Amino acid sequence: MNTTITDKQAASVITSKELLEHWKGHRGLTRRVIEAFPEKELFEYSVGGMRPFAAMAKELLAIAAPGIRQIVNGNEEELNENLDQATTKADILKLWDETTAEIDRYWPQIPVERFSENILAFGQYEGTVWSTIFYFIDNEIHHRAQGYVYLRSLGIEPPFFWER
Amino acid sequence: MNTTITDKQAASVITSKELLEHWKGHRGLTRRVIEAFPEKELFEYSVGGMRPFAAMAKELLAIAAPGIRQIVNGNEEELNENLDQATTKADILKLWDETTAEIDRYWPQIPVERFSENILAFGQYEGTVWSTIFYFIDNEIHHRAQGYVYLRSLGIEPPFFWER
Repeated sequence: MNTTITDKQAASVITSKELLEHWKGHRGLTRRVIEAFPEKELFEYSVGGMRPFAAMAKELLAIAAPGIRQIVNGNEEELNENLDQATTKADILKLWDETTAEIDRYWPQIPVERFSENILAFGQYEGTVWSTIFYFIDNEIHHRAQGYVYLRSLGIEPPFFWER
Repeated sequence: MNTTITDKQAASVITSKELLEHWKGHRGLTRRVIEAFPEKELFEYSVGGMRPFAAMAKELLAIAAPGIRQIVNGNEEELNENLDQATTKADILKLWDETTAEIDRYWPQIPVERFSENILAFGQYEGTVWSTIFYFIDNEIHHRAQGYVYLRSLGIEPPFFWER
């Protein structure tokens, strides 16, 4: 009997589709954290000399869609965190939603065998495709959690971490 | 031709061994964040009315080893975050290392097909094995990042996020 081994048939830790849904669950939560900030504090408030949460959100925006595009296209993308055009919460949320849509569009073009291949993300970060994508997600969790502390110190209840 | 489908042969997003190494990279970083706190501040300092970082570390300790044990043994473990015996940084670090050793010991006993099975972690949290383990890791990243803000607001440089 011939057996074709596919992602679906083989037992696997997590499928590509599950990883996408996992990330999108995190992206939904991060969106709610952005929303929870008052307009002014999103761009100005910080703790311990760190960046305001808007600057962290812009870093996440600079990474996510260009990061997935370069995995699919194999070209080199520039890391541009400035995003000067985003000056309001509404601007950030709009870019956030456009990024989610772009991830959704590109993701199915990553063949499962690509995840274990090596890449140099943004022309400088070595890793496999999976470790690069995990880095994008982990980095989002990391900065969002810093936003939680900002919100708490502003007396604002952040969204539940476990709600995705 | 008969083909046995194994984790190794099939293209997969991430293998079980890679996921373990990924988690252990995070655990090493979290250990360095615990170490970076001065003794007193680890147990007493906080921002925005949140818990001191020692209490967060105890939560992570309460979850990790019991969480993996119950995935392997199929029994129900109690979630006990008190860990009253841990009153010094050295105590926390010792428990941290014992936990890492226990994860290492139990992890190879999770067959790859188990990751997609449903479990009720700590008798109350529904999910698949993979989503439960991802929750453990994500929750560690989340609380560690809050520790980063505590350290920054204490004027202490935290370890680099990307060093694992």
